[in-house]
Amino acid sequence: MKQLTVWAPLAKHIAAEVDGETVSLEAVAGGWWKTPQMYPAGTRYSFMLDGGEKTPDPRSLSQPQGVHGPSELVLPQSFAWTDSQWQAPPLASAVLYEAHIGTFSEEGTFDGAIKHLPHLKELGVTHLELLPIVEFPGVRGWGYDGVDLYAPHHAYGGPHGLQRLVDACHREGLAVLLDVVYNHLGPSGNYLERFGPYFTERFHTPWGKAINFDDQYSDEVRRFFIDNALMWLRDYHFDGLRLDAVHAIFDMSATHFLSELASEVAALSANLGRHFVLIAESDLNDPRVITPQEAGGYGIDAQWSDDFHHALHTILTEEREGYYADFGTYRDLEQVLKTGYAYHGQYAPSRKRRHGRRPMEANGSRFVVCTQNHDQIGNRADGTRTSHLLEIDRLKIAAAVLLCSPFVPMLFQGEEWGTRRYFQYFTDHQEPELAEAVRRGRQREFKAFGWKPDQVPDPQAEDTYRRSRLDWTELSLEHHQELLDWYRALIQLRRSEHQLSNPSLATIEVHFDERDKWFCFRRESIAVFFHLGVHTVELPQAGIEELLLTSTDAVCRSGENLTLPPDTVAIARIKPLHRE
Amino acid sequence: MKQLTVWAPLAKHIAAEVDGETVSLEAVAGGWWKTPQMYPAGTRYSFMLDGGEKTPDPRSLSQPQGVHGPSELVLPQSFAWTDSQWQAPPLASAVLYEAHIGTFSEEGTFDGAIKHLPHLKELGVTHLELLPIVEFPGVRGWGYDGVDLYAPHHAYGGPHGLQRLVDACHREGLAVLLDVVYNHLGPSGNYLERFGPYFTERFHTPWGKAINFDDQYSDEVRRFFIDNALMWLRDYHFDGLRLDAVHAIFDMSATHFLSELASEVAALSANLGRHFVLIAESDLNDPRVITPQEAGGYGIDAQWSDDFHHALHTILTEEREGYYADFGTYRDLEQVLKTGYAYHGQYAPSRKRRHGRRPMEANGSRFVVCTQNHDQIGNRADGTRTSHLLEIDRLKIAAAVLLCSPFVPMLFQGEEWGTRRYFQYFTDHQEPELAEAVRRGRQREFKAFGWKPDQVPDPQAEDTYRRSRLDWTELSLEHHQELLDWYRALIQLRRSEHQLSNPSLATIEVHFDERDKWFCFRRESIAVFFHLGVHTVELPQAGIEELLLTSTDAVCRSGENLTLPPDTVAIARIKPLHRE
Repeated sequence: MKQLTVWAPLAKHIAAEVDGETVSLEAVAGGWWKTPQMYPAGTRYSFMLDGGEKTPDPRSLSQPQGVHGPSELVLPQSFAWTDSQWQAPPLASAVLYEAHIGTFSEEGTFDGAIKHLPHLKELGVTHLELLPIVEFPGVRGWGYDGVDLYAPHHAYGGPHGLQRLVDACHREGLAVLLDVVYNHLGPSGNYLERFGPYFTERFHTPWGKAINFDDQYSDEVRRFFIDNALMWLRDYHFDGLRLDAVHAIFDMSATHFLSELASEVAALSANLGRHFVLIAESDLNDPRVITPQEAGGYGIDAQWSDDFHHALHTILTEEREGYYADFGTYRDLEQVLKTGYAYHGQYAPSRKRRHGRRPMEANGSRFVVCTQNHDQIGNRADGTRTSHLLEIDRLKIAAAVLLCSPFVPMLFQGEEWGTRRYFQYFTDHQEPELAEAVRRGRQREFKAFGWKPDQVPDPQAEDTYRRSRLDWTELSLEHHQELLDWYRALIQLRRSEHQLSNPSLATIEVHFDERDKWFCFRRESIAVFFHLGVHTVELPQAGIEELLLTSTDAVCRSGENLTLPPDTVAIARIKPLHRE
Repeated sequence: MKQLTVWAPLAKHIAAEVDGETVSLEAVAGGWWKTPQMYPAGTRYSFMLDGGEKTPDPRSLSQPQGVHGPSELVLPQSFAWTDSQWQAPPLASAVLYEAHIGTFSEEGTFDGAIKHLPHLKELGVTHLELLPIVEFPGVRGWGYDGVDLYAPHHAYGGPHGLQRLVDACHREGLAVLLDVVYNHLGPSGNYLERFGPYFTERFHTPWGKAINFDDQYSDEVRRFFIDNALMWLRDYHFDGLRLDAVHAIFDMSATHFLSELASEVAALSANLGRHFVLIAESDLNDPRVITPQEAGGYGIDAQWSDDFHHALHTILTEEREGYYADFGTYRDLEQVLKTGYAYHGQYAPSRKRRHGRRPMEANGSRFVVCTQNHDQIGNRADGTRTSHLLEIDRLKIAAAVLLCSPFVPMLFQGEEWGTRRYFQYFTDHQEPELAEAVRRGRQREFKAFGWKPDQVPDPQAEDTYRRSRLDWTELSLEHHQELLDWYRALIQLRRSEHQLSNPSLATIEVHFDERDKWFCFRRESIAVFFHLGVHTVELPQAGIEELLLTSTDAVCRSGENLTLPPDTVAIARIKPLHRE
């Protein structure tokens, strides 16, 4: 049983329609309102501000009829958890796996995902990371258009479905991270503005109004997002959060929202005795985000390093369009491997300005890296994956660099077997004009890159969604099995050779020859060599002691020397540093 | 002799009109253009972009005919300086004096100010701080509407006038600071936008378009402001800069503009072997601004603490309008004295949110404080000074708290003798519609506080300016002389008793009784006692050893006890801390 409460500091009168009956709310302190009575779980209700139309609760925990429908009272605390002994492993030893609930399983639900957890466990994954799962318009979508930020999507299975999935992960020995969007709300079903100054006109985001983190009434707006974060960790047992696009969180106040969030999460961690992590998606290359608070930073545990992706992707694919123009040299990859960023103050042509700053700390576990993710695939016009762009030889090279890197590696669903499925941009907007605007926007965006309108998949078409759903039957094909074995072997090696998961960047050594197209990076006594040239290359002074893994049998050593045919990679134990 | 150069990265063609002749500029690297020929000092010129109208040089060093007229080529390096041995004293030992060139002297010029320097020296001032002096529209104005940021205002005496003043200050033993505005440009004569992306639409300031510090082409925009700062220090021999309203400098990039500025100024300091200081006006109460870069801050030397002003002002005047609503208790003053801020995270009613963060460092020399400044006076409807609001007894209390504080005290011109002159808001806009908009805006602003339109002085009227000009003949009046003597004695005491200028906040002790209206703060073995009640108060355990200064002879001690009549202040040597 629970009272219904809502924050609406400027409202004159608030009523709720509760299971068909209208009830007036009482004003309490700080702009909050509450119903006189308590209601049981399952109660359906809406709020009416100052005689206006019915709207969902901004903190609704469940929207069984979608973003415009009534809210449902849920008591997440009532779930019977079986994970009381669970602790997540540290990020430094993690292998992340990014999955989208709607396309990961045949069913596209939380429960549907459960049966594939053994696959992840067997692969060596430690953390499942879910794309946003909160209520967004319609039933198909990536999730970044969420508007009921406290409500797990009804089409995925709602609150209890999510709890069953997290509990199942923990039982399987997998930690679970959740992608949360604290920089804007989706364009449809966003009723927050009616309740209070959740948004500001002072700053702009590319996707919608910026959140009011630092102006009048912002204390309670900040609480809205911080309480949301704490809820996922406390009531849904998530082990951490991935914070979407923190570069669009504008906060000029003395304590940045990210810093306050990190402090509150640390306090909850102490209170519950569980490890939590916060990972930011940041386009800033600003070490402040991941610097500990004692050293003047925000105290976020880690950030995505897009530079890693771009540096490796451009070398392997030779693509140079858009922001890939800023990358493409072996030296970019060297910079990333040594510092986490390729750009730490240099001029970035696509940005037309200098970009980034050098981190003071040389700690690889502050960076989550990948060779594919939902954005890098899905933000291509047709959602082609790296496995559409590259032959298996180069996919193996990508995987080796990723999984032998000093960073926290992350896979994207199906990457591990080189799936031929796409991950296209799909939506299910209910308003025809919004649907059309998204469709046209997408066509416009890719026109600049030579795509004709009818070549760009229609985000609203159900087929676009279907093409993006994983096909688990692919796993029985030999070609896919070969790549999967390679991923398994790499993760296994990362686990058994502690040097590979050592996050220190201080000892990384890089050698390359851009003309002959070979590259080597060395982690103490283990080195990764790859070769992209058209002729076999001999590395006479490679110092090889033992080949640990090679992408084909054609890679061979003779004494200390290494022979690399085109498009191959080798991981080798090598002589100690002072060898000459 | 010098080439004319200009940055205009998007221009197709640029011509200059030089002394009546038209010359085409050549494109050089990085979006820069230059004339083929060199020109001598005194050359008058304008630029024409892509066949457009004549505009001044964005980096014009002199605008002899105002903001719309031609630029004049100046060689500031040619000045014959006499200050080769000069070094400014450290901020921790400083007493600042804020002056507005247009109203400080009868002439309202740089040269006019020179004859009053002995007055400042005799008073004990160490640093003269000039309100902005760059070319703004018309001939009367505070200076915050500047548009030619490299050109000392022609009405003040132009580049060489300014150099003569700085040189004279140094000869007199006074350091000189300059107020610079790097957050917006004035509304009239702002031609920068035509030359390049100097502004951004992503952020908003209350006064005009925000500067583009972090988007495309921002490298060169940042250089525009940083080169400007370096010019004042290098070519005009200023000892430091006061950075106007840094809370309106929006920069999301990894290296904040303020941080880059501080680094560049530090490099120039090393290069020239001179001490420079940077002081920010900051409404953020964010210690990051004044935290050293090694500790994750921007590395600005000090910031204005408006909280000090507001806490003291509200106690002395009992005003509670507008942002003064956030102040008024003795505890606010205690908080300021102990940390530099009254607000370090508490809810501020006028802001409708929590405000500020507690500094880690307890260093008083990071805060410039005052009881009056151009803003706190001039942003009142009629520009009344504290000396209009308070009797001399309370003015003496204000001065004692200011000059015995652990912070860097700053006086505002004429404060030291309690001038009866106003400092009203005055402008001299040339466009009638702009003049009217400013007039109406001012009337609208103060309507909320009960001011009728005709009670608000007309900013455009020359009388408004005249009323704001200092009247040095006041100094011959006994009343004024008494206050001046008090200021002199306090500054003298601050100098002779090293405890008073010790910037450590760690040892400050505060006692007060808000009902009886007495307040005491203690700096090691010196204490300041003031009393605002209507009845004489006896402080029996005050531990007085010696009265150092009292505001009237009616203050007396008997043994350790102190007797304070209404509206008095005493500075006393007291027994060591372990006295009981």
